[in-house]
Amino acid sequence: MRYSVFAESSRVCPLLCISACELVGGSQDQAMPMACALEMVHTASFIHDDLPCMDDDELRRGKAANHKVFGEDLAILAGDALYALGVEYVASNSKDICPDTLLRVIAELGKAVGSEGMVAGQYLELASNESGEELTFEALRDIHLRKTAAYAECSTVCGAILGGADEEQIQSLRQYGRALGLLYEVVEDMAEQSGKNKIRTPSSYIKVLGLEKCKEYVKLLRSEAKSYLSGFDTKKAVPLLCFVDQLAERVRDYEAF
Amino acid sequence: MRYSVFAESSRVCPLLCISACELVGGSQDQAMPMACALEMVHTASFIHDDLPCMDDDELRRGKAANHKVFGEDLAILAGDALYALGVEYVASNSKDICPDTLLRVIAELGKAVGSEGMVAGQYLELASNESGEELTFEALRDIHLRKTAAYAECSTVCGAILGGADEEQIQSLRQYGRALGLLYEVVEDMAEQSGKNKIRTPSSYIKVLGLEKCKEYVKLLRSEAKSYLSGFDTKKAVPLLCFVDQLAERVRDYEAF
Repeated sequence: MRYSVFAESSRVCPLLCISACELVGGSQDQAMPMACALEMVHTASFIHDDLPCMDDDELRRGKAANHKVFGEDLAILAGDALYALGVEYVASNSKDICPDTLLRVIAELGKAVGSEGMVAGQYLELASNESGEELTFEALRDIHLRKTAAYAECSTVCGAILGGADEEQIQSLRQYGRALGLLYEVVEDMAEQSGKNKIRTPSSYIKVLGLEKCKEYVKLLRSEAKSYLSGFDTKKAVPLLCFVDQLAERVRDYEAF
Repeated sequence: MRYSVFAESSRVCPLLCISACELVGGSQDQAMPMACALEMVHTASFIHDDLPCMDDDELRRGKAANHKVFGEDLAILAGDALYALGVEYVASNSKDICPDTLLRVIAELGKAVGSEGMVAGQYLELASNESGEELTFEALRDIHLRKTAAYAECSTVCGAILGGADEEQIQSLRQYGRALGLLYEVVEDMAEQSGKNKIRTPSSYIKVLGLEKCKEYVKLLRSEAKSYLSGFDTKKAVPLLCFVDQLAERVRDYEAF
């Protein structure tokens, strides 16, 4: 569990959670247990996704995948225990949060992970990899909406809820998280196809859209994600705005493609 | 997920949860979402434990193990999603339960499943199976305390908490659940060794204790489990008393051993 959680990571989900919490007037302390839980649960999903019967990845976060070091049995158990620990941690360690609010974020986390969220996305991805057929744009987007986008969404929504956001703010940050998650996948896809990253799947935005439309899609997602922050204090929104720009700017690196 | 959850099962953990809740004056309705969550999470652990890299079991609950039907990848995902659904279900569907109480049972569930509970027990069992060495009585008991006993304990404790038990009652029902879980393992062990069930592990209570001491241990656990119910209304305690007697009486079937 420690091997994978403490591997080098951008900690983007915890950062999204804390940034969303602070954006709506909450504190870092209020969001921290949930931020830790998000990282533990995300790591759990990585460990399971990397297994030979799943994506069969040998590397994760710059080092050997969990099962390459500890074996498949312990990798499965480490994932299970990290999910359990994440839930227990946020339930037991959150302070200055009303219990109703905590139950709501725990339910959000369960939903983002479960059979309508990350598990569903992984299932669809496995099925498409097995069939070997190229996905349509919509099918590819659907997978990423359930995987990366659902988890980014969960991170910002939970941060917003913990920070005391109203329903309209929660809705805006949900949309922001979703757009950011999709943006991440498109940018990763461009990096893969340009040869800078390992190819993960047979399907690709570049393949189905072509390079020019792909760049336009990045532009669209970039402005869409930022538009959901327009109702907030601009200064406080800086971290969330920066996440968008940093991601979108990475596309420049792949121009040579 | 449905294939494994709706397989024939004694539903003993849900029954323990509801019975404990009713024993302390709560209602079935108050315990039901948690009872369902316990069954989902228990099923999740079965699905993962049966995998080829773990216990490599082909049968579970009278039919083919999940991975034999759906493949290892989907079996891992089904387990992950069932755990997530269990947590989400109890967080979202419990009624007439104060949120603080719900957070407490969610934390209890996480603890029973995680790296100090079922996952730890499964780890110790895998390690002992791999070494091929016979365990001592204490080591065997430690594995079962973390696996079956921890989960039976979680079931009664959560039922008690949801039913509004005081701390002394919770403590008694924790001890009861623990003794019942151990009793279950010893009786199962006797059934295995008598050839009525499939042998699961190289280690066995009968092997380390001998038949006579094993029977004495059953007697001890039986009276111990029942003793923890002595402070409760005898009539209301009937279901929990019956669980103990039914288990212990099964030993008669193995007398021929």
